[in-house]
Amino acid sequence: MPETSSPTGPAETAGRPLAPERREDQVPAPSPRRVIVIGGVAAGMSAATRLRRLEESARITVLERGDHVSFANCGLPYYVGGVITERDSLLLQTPASLAARFNLDVRVRTEALSIDRAARTVRVRSTAADGTPTEEDLPYDALVLAPGARPVLPPVPGIERALSLRSVADADALLAAVATGGPDGGPARSAVVLGAGFIGLEVAENLHRRKLSVTLVELADQVLPPLDPEMAAPVAARLREAGIEVRTGTSLSRVEAHEAVLTDGTRLPADLVVVAVGVRPDTALAAEAGLEVDERGGVVVDDEQRTSDPRIWAAGDAALKRSALDGEPTLIALAQPANRHGRVVADSILGRRPQAAPGIGTAIVGVLGLEVAMTGWSEKRARAAGLDVVVVHTHPADHATYYPGSASMSLKLVLEAGSGRILGAQGLGEAGVDKRIDVVATAIRAGLNGPDLADLELAYAPQYGAAKDPVIMLGLVADNVLSGLTPTIQWHELAQARQAGGVLVDVRSTAEFARGHIPGALNVPVDELRERLAELPRDRPLIMSCQVGARGHLAVRLALQHGLQAANLDGGYRTWSAAHGPGVLGPEQGEDRA
Amino acid sequence: MPETSSPTGPAETAGRPLAPERREDQVPAPSPRRVIVIGGVAAGMSAATRLRRLEESARITVLERGDHVSFANCGLPYYVGGVITERDSLLLQTPASLAARFNLDVRVRTEALSIDRAARTVRVRSTAADGTPTEEDLPYDALVLAPGARPVLPPVPGIERALSLRSVADADALLAAVATGGPDGGPARSAVVLGAGFIGLEVAENLHRRKLSVTLVELADQVLPPLDPEMAAPVAARLREAGIEVRTGTSLSRVEAHEAVLTDGTRLPADLVVVAVGVRPDTALAAEAGLEVDERGGVVVDDEQRTSDPRIWAAGDAALKRSALDGEPTLIALAQPANRHGRVVADSILGRRPQAAPGIGTAIVGVLGLEVAMTGWSEKRARAAGLDVVVVHTHPADHATYYPGSASMSLKLVLEAGSGRILGAQGLGEAGVDKRIDVVATAIRAGLNGPDLADLELAYAPQYGAAKDPVIMLGLVADNVLSGLTPTIQWHELAQARQAGGVLVDVRSTAEFARGHIPGALNVPVDELRERLAELPRDRPLIMSCQVGARGHLAVRLALQHGLQAANLDGGYRTWSAAHGPGVLGPEQGEDRA
Repeated sequence: MPETSSPTGPAETAGRPLAPERREDQVPAPSPRRVIVIGGVAAGMSAATRLRRLEESARITVLERGDHVSFANCGLPYYVGGVITERDSLLLQTPASLAARFNLDVRVRTEALSIDRAARTVRVRSTAADGTPTEEDLPYDALVLAPGARPVLPPVPGIERALSLRSVADADALLAAVATGGPDGGPARSAVVLGAGFIGLEVAENLHRRKLSVTLVELADQVLPPLDPEMAAPVAARLREAGIEVRTGTSLSRVEAHEAVLTDGTRLPADLVVVAVGVRPDTALAAEAGLEVDERGGVVVDDEQRTSDPRIWAAGDAALKRSALDGEPTLIALAQPANRHGRVVADSILGRRPQAAPGIGTAIVGVLGLEVAMTGWSEKRARAAGLDVVVVHTHPADHATYYPGSASMSLKLVLEAGSGRILGAQGLGEAGVDKRIDVVATAIRAGLNGPDLADLELAYAPQYGAAKDPVIMLGLVADNVLSGLTPTIQWHELAQARQAGGVLVDVRSTAEFARGHIPGALNVPVDELRERLAELPRDRPLIMSCQVGARGHLAVRLALQHGLQAANLDGGYRTWSAAHGPGVLGPEQGEDRA
Repeated sequence: MPETSSPTGPAETAGRPLAPERREDQVPAPSPRRVIVIGGVAAGMSAATRLRRLEESARITVLERGDHVSFANCGLPYYVGGVITERDSLLLQTPASLAARFNLDVRVRTEALSIDRAARTVRVRSTAADGTPTEEDLPYDALVLAPGARPVLPPVPGIERALSLRSVADADALLAAVATGGPDGGPARSAVVLGAGFIGLEVAENLHRRKLSVTLVELADQVLPPLDPEMAAPVAARLREAGIEVRTGTSLSRVEAHEAVLTDGTRLPADLVVVAVGVRPDTALAAEAGLEVDERGGVVVDDEQRTSDPRIWAAGDAALKRSALDGEPTLIALAQPANRHGRVVADSILGRRPQAAPGIGTAIVGVLGLEVAMTGWSEKRARAAGLDVVVVHTHPADHATYYPGSASMSLKLVLEAGSGRILGAQGLGEAGVDKRIDVVATAIRAGLNGPDLADLELAYAPQYGAAKDPVIMLGLVADNVLSGLTPTIQWHELAQARQAGGVLVDVRSTAEFARGHIPGALNVPVDELRERLAELPRDRPLIMSCQVGARGHLAVRLALQHGLQAANLDGGYRTWSAAHGPGVLGPEQGEDRA
């Protein structure tokens, strides 16, 4: 065993912070260093394996309350749905494989009961396969808290009948309920999924795959509450088209046998109820040990992930992050920062002075053939923070429309007015959304402004994008709006602008106009606009509207230069109707708004 | 007509640069401003339409030598291959549509013969449908040169029989040759494609689709010469698997009827020969007019795309770009910068003081199910520039391997040693390569360093990526290498390192080792390494090698901490065998090298 090459006992360094004075390999460390990691999934296991790669001699013990470490929690809904057929494929590592490769002492079914910070010990209870519990105190030089989060359960009668989906055991239970949860002990036929966030959608889709009749219930007045409503509405439409019932603005009041009762009194058939309304940091242990915990429940850490106790670190869903948008503490329960911060913890324990990057919050969900993704702040989040924002909606094709198989997407870019700083982006469509959101997320991390996106050089061949890639187009439009070339108004500002005297001019073709338009709009096709300017009032502001915003931009430019007042309805009829109507995504002619 | 609202003649401003003193709408402009644009495809049409959006009153004339403006030149190979079935879908705009929407005077079959800079006129010759030519002098206040580039044709006997593919007319000719180019006047059965760059590969694939027997001939000793050889080798293997013959290190010496003769004497059946060895800026007009032209043939422009004559701008393939990598002039014949710089031209003509971003050079080709992409500089390009580089190869899956349908890719990151500045990246695989190269291209534009990639937050769900996304993993590995944690050696350094006494240790499992390994390697599986360290020499450097580099990293860390000398073979057996063997891309277990 490698530890025996340093056979001395642990150095006594009590009361002295481990890391601040120390840089790797320069200052004596306790030898062997005893590290306990509580939580063996993303953050915890990243910390443990990184630490091993950095320090062969450390004695690393990983405590996992559940049956499994390093399991693929993001795959659980797809295992429930039968997309992932092999349960074993969710189990990325085992205690044995981690012992062989990383010399880790991984203990499953082992719960940390309490932390004695003065003695630097953790009280743990292990449960043997036969159920026999044993308790002991484990000493540490460094302690890593990565306990994750627990699902939030509404405190309503019968909630103990409800299921959630955070662990392999949860997936097993959910699959069992699907198989035998029907009134007759046969297959379940109906399900209510509470919460239409990212996980709720995945659960709903996968129960739908299992042929259950699914109702999605969401307290907010839209699905995917982190998104802005006009970006979420097409997702609700897609769910309904597929036969998933969507009920927003309501919640669960009671779970009964084979029925769920909503706060609005509706009784829904529900052989099973799955709750996916969010998670809460699992920080009871930290709080009981007197570590600083935020009012939201997250463990307070510094930029090296160190808690208020210099010998204790925290990472993952349980730890607060710093927001890259406003620098404030925030909770981001995502796998990527969890893994990344676990690595930061290991570096920090060894005095490498890492800096955890502030959090942006980038997320994606695939549902019923739609990709829906976001990064950073939504428009409503930015406005709630008191920021003056500039918003751009576009509806580009994922690749050149002249090449077969292109699909339309909708993108939204949220900028800080004045500076043009990118605050966030959202996207949905059938293909290529992930790529565009990743590019914008990278731009946010790097501090690019909206117009800088116009200068990106992205890989273009007609199968993959466009010479004016959707992200480049966002940058071009952002430049036009920020520079004042083209005033725009948002879909939610239209009614007020018209009440104030604005005249809505639909500049699409007469055929497009006939297929559907915003009530009360005039129709003057852009190609006739130069000749028909005299038809438009010079004393009232014009609101130009087209299908996606491109022709509207041209119309605004034209009108302004002829002395009229004009603004472009951002995102055109597509964005307006997504917010107001069925929001069906259809193929769209690429247009040039640059 | 809108021009009549400003009925005065053009202001006389001869001899005074238009733009430097002027900002939009602040200084009187010639009214109406007369702008001539030579070239009606990407850069030229972007300039013309942007100019119209900015200035209704300008008189904008676009001269296009060919039959078509704004055609989809990147789609031509796919029209030849029958992937794009409608010829009309390549024609994005017509003179009539551009007149209606943008009030542009677009003249096709109209060639600019000469420029009289003193008189500020262009001599043009238009050819009517019946072939009748007419010549005239057109006056300008601002002139835009966007003539594009011409294919390079090797000066060999019979080259006039060869075809190329730059225009719709070229595609028509190539399709005619496919249909009737056989020895009997029937369908062609064989083709030689000269040049295995991006376009050459597209042409070869599409003629292969048309059931021709295709030989790809490339003067360099690899296909895709802009890539490094180990990244290009799997592409050659894929071409050969599909039945396309690949001959590198040779060229064309003669074109005969139904045969091509190579410089090495080989005679190849060739009912048709297509030349795609590159393009040369079409700058004869500029040079004859006395404008400054670089020795490479590109028109010299400033950061606003202005030539050495302040009334003349240039953009697109004919204009030099400034390299973002070293600030030197460079030629980049790609659609994205062409469109972007056309827009810069329009802004500059109006005194808006735009700044053209320096060029990175991001390109992608899809061939036989492979996506092959690059951005920035290759390793060989960087080394040729005298830079000390750090290189990272990885072989990640495009999405979580536990979710169905994941495919392996190979990525390469080229960094400047010391600074860690990202110089370039390359990738190939069956899915998701475009996204990763776009993210790195964005990082290059934004000035991120290699390790910064580890802190990106990218959209993760198991269908789309990994909690440690391939790009994030590049950043983690870059950090390990740059920080000195893990010394690496490249595949092309291995032989010398072994000659110098290095011992190659393959740390994969015995089963993997048995399936293929680098000759002469020892096999000590990483999971046995701690126990078997005594078997390894302490006085000679160890070169750890695994499948993709992940276990090798762990082995190096382990060995170093036990006092041995060790380096990791970057990219492992996969990169080594790609460079030395058939380079078949197969499914790969995701591994953690963070």
